[in-house]
Amino acid sequence: MRTLKVDLGDRSYPIYIGSGIRQQKALFSEAIHGKQVMIVTNETVAAHYLEDMVAMLSEDYQVDTCILPDGERYKTLATYEQIMTSLLEAKHNRTTTVIALGGGVVGDMAGFAAATYQRGVPFIQVPTTLLSQVDSSVGGKTGVNHPLGKNMIGAFYQPQAVVIDTDSLNTLPERELSAGMAEVIKYGLICDAPFFTWLENNIDDLMTLDGEKITHAIYESCLAKAKVVAQDEKEGGIRAILNLGHTFGHAIETEMGYGNWLHGEAVAAGTVLAIDLSWRLGNVTETDVARSVALLEKAKLPILPPKGMSRDAFIGRMLLDKKVLDGSLRFVLLKALGEAYVTSDFALDDFNACLDDAIEAAAQAS
Amino acid sequence: MRTLKVDLGDRSYPIYIGSGIRQQKALFSEAIHGKQVMIVTNETVAAHYLEDMVAMLSEDYQVDTCILPDGERYKTLATYEQIMTSLLEAKHNRTTTVIALGGGVVGDMAGFAAATYQRGVPFIQVPTTLLSQVDSSVGGKTGVNHPLGKNMIGAFYQPQAVVIDTDSLNTLPERELSAGMAEVIKYGLICDAPFFTWLENNIDDLMTLDGEKITHAIYESCLAKAKVVAQDEKEGGIRAILNLGHTFGHAIETEMGYGNWLHGEAVAAGTVLAIDLSWRLGNVTETDVARSVALLEKAKLPILPPKGMSRDAFIGRMLLDKKVLDGSLRFVLLKALGEAYVTSDFALDDFNACLDDAIEAAAQAS
Repeated sequence: MRTLKVDLGDRSYPIYIGSGIRQQKALFSEAIHGKQVMIVTNETVAAHYLEDMVAMLSEDYQVDTCILPDGERYKTLATYEQIMTSLLEAKHNRTTTVIALGGGVVGDMAGFAAATYQRGVPFIQVPTTLLSQVDSSVGGKTGVNHPLGKNMIGAFYQPQAVVIDTDSLNTLPERELSAGMAEVIKYGLICDAPFFTWLENNIDDLMTLDGEKITHAIYESCLAKAKVVAQDEKEGGIRAILNLGHTFGHAIETEMGYGNWLHGEAVAAGTVLAIDLSWRLGNVTETDVARSVALLEKAKLPILPPKGMSRDAFIGRMLLDKKVLDGSLRFVLLKALGEAYVTSDFALDDFNACLDDAIEAAAQAS
Repeated sequence: MRTLKVDLGDRSYPIYIGSGIRQQKALFSEAIHGKQVMIVTNETVAAHYLEDMVAMLSEDYQVDTCILPDGERYKTLATYEQIMTSLLEAKHNRTTTVIALGGGVVGDMAGFAAATYQRGVPFIQVPTTLLSQVDSSVGGKTGVNHPLGKNMIGAFYQPQAVVIDTDSLNTLPERELSAGMAEVIKYGLICDAPFFTWLENNIDDLMTLDGEKITHAIYESCLAKAKVVAQDEKEGGIRAILNLGHTFGHAIETEMGYGNWLHGEAVAAGTVLAIDLSWRLGNVTETDVARSVALLEKAKLPILPPKGMSRDAFIGRMLLDKKVLDGSLRFVLLKALGEAYVTSDFALDDFNACLDDAIEAAAQAS
């Protein structure tokens, strides 16, 4: 097992990464201070992992469960209310601990429920997808979608601990493994060129879930994220670099309807757009672009926007993105491979050409 | 105008109290850092105060409004979602400022919306009822009710500023003035015996809204609350004393259905129960009890629980109260007039007798 710490003063917490560690009760006992536990999960994850966890924790705690429907389209206020109702019906008090057992959707919703149940109770993240293990379970962003925008309702709220069991990737569909790999690759692109090179050399082993290598990739990803979050918990500045590809990506997700494109898939296509724009600004070389595209393709990710999505659709969606400050579009771009920055300083012609070329390429693709 | 500061490190904020100050634009400009403002209010308050405020702020900002239905029964997730929809439809970004113009219900909901819109945007409280001026607008508690419990969903979230215009009490129904006075009297009881005596001597002038005296009463109340909140922002300890009468009071409110008994009315009847229990424990004298009851009566507040509410109903409701830790009932009681403490150390016989006597007295009352 490997351990790292997210350093946020009195809101610091440990991240544990290893094979089979969801069955190490001590990792949970350290983080639970009351007598009640509510495990929030979804139907798919429950079938694999819920019974074991309930059995383990029931030895010491009142354990209740809340099983949500599976899918991004259920990441709504209505589902969030269902968690609140479960907590109240089982008479959970302010010392209860919420455990989020599942992917990013479960983690975001259970985290927001924990942040706002009786004005805040502790919670533990047990992310079961690669995406949530390397991204959403670390850093304290919680929330739900609104029909008018993704993640528009939520809070910054840190967990007590994150328990990442790499074994849970064995039951993950390949498409979701790829989606998670988009975020892993992102860390190399934004802040760690050697890690990017390591990924190029090991991507095939990662895609077949080589245990040691997947643990390393998750550890490096969480470490990168933890460093950025420690510097800027509430995204006043540097944290924004974690959103490489996300402004384009959110536009794609929203346009296609939540859940039709996976988050990581939309981010992959968005990342290619961001790198292409970085190249047009003279920041990165054609080789950098080609290497990035090649790595994303090896991870079986889309590198083009959805066929038929117009430039107007992109711009309309992006204007409502949280990263749009006072109406001016700001993007995370690369200064070099392994170094990201945030800017609104680019020529509109370059921006339009970047989008138009990608839209054209998508139209041509079979 | 009088000013005081709630001291919470980088979340500190000023409270301004005075006649007509809702029209002092500088108080708002200091606290608004973006270009957008969303005024959240209700139908009743809007009729009196919205037009002026929109006109004043429109000189400098994009001003949008969200007018909610009036009443505690609308303090729900559905109404909260309506605020979120208004913000999104008017394309408010993360630099917007939410202004809560109204009583406690508006303040709690607008505050919770601000706490969770795009994971948190600034807000300003402009409380228009006495209750919200002396209680809910100060201290950062925000939230909505759930059908299974009052204020069960919410967050601690501090405003940028609180602007208390005493002129807005002129349009307040007398019953709501009384309800607010219950909280004013509470501050005397829990931490300020001289203020309690001052209230006894000035209650008649306060009930007729003598300007100087009402400003003094609000100032002393906010000062008392600010001191307690500065010591214990998230109610880990001392802050609980602010809940004198509230455990009984919430049981009454919930049992009667939200909004049928005003919060302050339920707190008044609950306060009498708490003082009576304090007397049974030998903490306060019969004279203290009589003085408290007399002052509450002069403020035209109920001093008995609702006719027909049984002991079982009280206990059942109280077991789900947020202040019940791990199933043991804890109460805020008086050690002396002007000094509160939190305890679960009381004989069940005393507790039962306290409730039974009050229930009996309520049954006898005409």
